[in-house]
Amino acid sequence: MTISMYQASVPLFKRQLGALLNWLDKAEAHATARKFDPNNYLQLRLAPDMLPFVSQIRIASDGAKGCVARLAGIEIPKFEDNEATLDELAERIRKTRDFVRSVPAAAFDGSEAREISIPRRVGEPLKFDGLSYLNHFALPNFYFHATTTYALLRHAGVPLGKGDYLGA
Amino acid sequence: MTISMYQASVPLFKRQLGALLNWLDKAEAHATARKFDPNNYLQLRLAPDMLPFVSQIRIASDGAKGCVARLAGIEIPKFEDNEATLDELAERIRKTRDFVRSVPAAAFDGSEAREISIPRRVGEPLKFDGLSYLNHFALPNFYFHATTTYALLRHAGVPLGKGDYLGA
Repeated sequence: MTISMYQASVPLFKRQLGALLNWLDKAEAHATARKFDPNNYLQLRLAPDMLPFVSQIRIASDGAKGCVARLAGIEIPKFEDNEATLDELAERIRKTRDFVRSVPAAAFDGSEAREISIPRRVGEPLKFDGLSYLNHFALPNFYFHATTTYALLRHAGVPLGKGDYLGA
Repeated sequence: MTISMYQASVPLFKRQLGALLNWLDKAEAHATARKFDPNNYLQLRLAPDMLPFVSQIRIASDGAKGCVARLAGIEIPKFEDNEATLDELAERIRKTRDFVRSVPAAAFDGSEAREISIPRRVGEPLKFDGLSYLNHFALPNFYFHATTTYALLRHAGVPLGKGDYLGA
């Protein structure tokens, strides 16, 4: 009558990261067809005071690996945050997905009650139990950055649809 | 060592719908300060082949009430989809949240295995078990439409930040 924390997190990240890789392929194909540098996507913003495409993808990646590592009680893999091309962003997403896939389901046992602390740039860290962290921080944030990535590509004319967003 | 389907769904919808209501308040205040008709938001689109703001909010509402009703095995409340003002959209979100709040947790027992069928405009309905429906359809879709609503408001200059997105 219940589900595990693993079931409520890892499959969602795996699916969405796979979908994101597909968007990047289509973004590259669109750039090739329209004869522009695919790295032009990296600095696109939906508003001048929103983070650019490159950051949206980094933060989606951070959200997935951070959530999985925190719930499983293991160290968060550190990436260098120096991606300068669309290919490097795709490689980051693949590395993120590999990490998410590598963590065994048993590591999530009891994580609904695990104390999670998220450092902030200023002020005290945010404190959650594992379930509140997943529900009210990790998942909404992850989908925020995935959807914003998708929105930037749609805004840029990349032919994507809801099936691409949801993945398979 | 596990969580319930209720815990994996209802609190997320409640939180995000509350956040969305706050965005609409700030959107109205922004319109008042800038002296434009707040109903001008309703037809904004991020791309000419994406659905407008009014539809993003309707579909976020549909996603929340549809998911809760399907998992609980009860009838989905029907709304008229005729909102023509920002106030009417806020009222729809309040009605959606009231419905989400009204369904008892016990109604979700066993819903991870419940067969869910989603009609499509063309073709066979989509079939899921309850858990796959929640993870790979309902949650990603709901956050898609919430984030797209947020993105449209940010694009329109409404002063919102990540704290507004996440809600409280």
